[in-house]
Amino acid sequence: MDEVWNQKNSGKVEKYIHSKYTIHLDTADPWEGKTLTHLEFKERLQHSFNAFPDMHFEITFAIEEEKHVAITWILTGTNLGVIGGFPPTNKKIKTNGITIYHFKENLISGHTQVFDRVTVAKQLGFVK
Amino acid sequence: MDEVWNQKNSGKVEKYIHSKYTIHLDTADPWEGKTLTHLEFKERLQHSFNAFPDMHFEITFAIEEEKHVAITWILTGTNLGVIGGFPPTNKKIKTNGITIYHFKENLISGHTQVFDRVTVAKQLGFVK
Repeated sequence: MDEVWNQKNSGKVEKYIHSKYTIHLDTADPWEGKTLTHLEFKERLQHSFNAFPDMHFEITFAIEEEKHVAITWILTGTNLGVIGGFPPTNKKIKTNGITIYHFKENLISGHTQVFDRVTVAKQLGFVK
Repeated sequence: MDEVWNQKNSGKVEKYIHSKYTIHLDTADPWEGKTLTHLEFKERLQHSFNAFPDMHFEITFAIEEEKHVAITWILTGTNLGVIGGFPPTNKKIKTNGITIYHFKENLISGHTQVFDRVTVAKQLGFVK
């Protein structure tokens, strides 16, 4: 989360991410249900970084099992690029989410995620 | 989840729920941030059962640590009562969520939860 997402260092993808990365659940994510290669994972990163160049995850809580880690997080960022077909709003977002990371061969092989999209839609002015 | 929420048996609250139950995170839940007594927990149950008398949680995945359990679930139900100040829509909902249950003295002492409210708002016709 810190090196890849917060520091925007896509060069670290191979270090942490399995070459087959499955997005088990992530509603409205264009890649939901798909299994991504490293290249596709980097494209997905870039898609997010374009929309929110300063996006930052603060991990607030974590629990772990042998093959899984669940984290709660607060995402902040400024919408400076296209998202969901909408032009940039220049507005700031702050929202909560929970992600379960799945591990395979000591690498992160996928995730199951839900986050508070209502709050984001309100902050960007898409809904009242 | 099965006995209390799915079977709507609020008599089982004392068996599973700590007398101080804290809702750490549950956006838009009227009780978010509060610590509930058993009586208040039952009132919150009734609030949900009134809105969705047939509400049902299907647990799809779980991971556990000593003092915490994270579960992913699918909630289904029919909106036959007031919710968020809106009259009943008679519409069905189906949505995903992740809950982390916190344990204390072998009882569930609280939760941290995020669920897909956008999908529910669309299914009830509150947003397009």
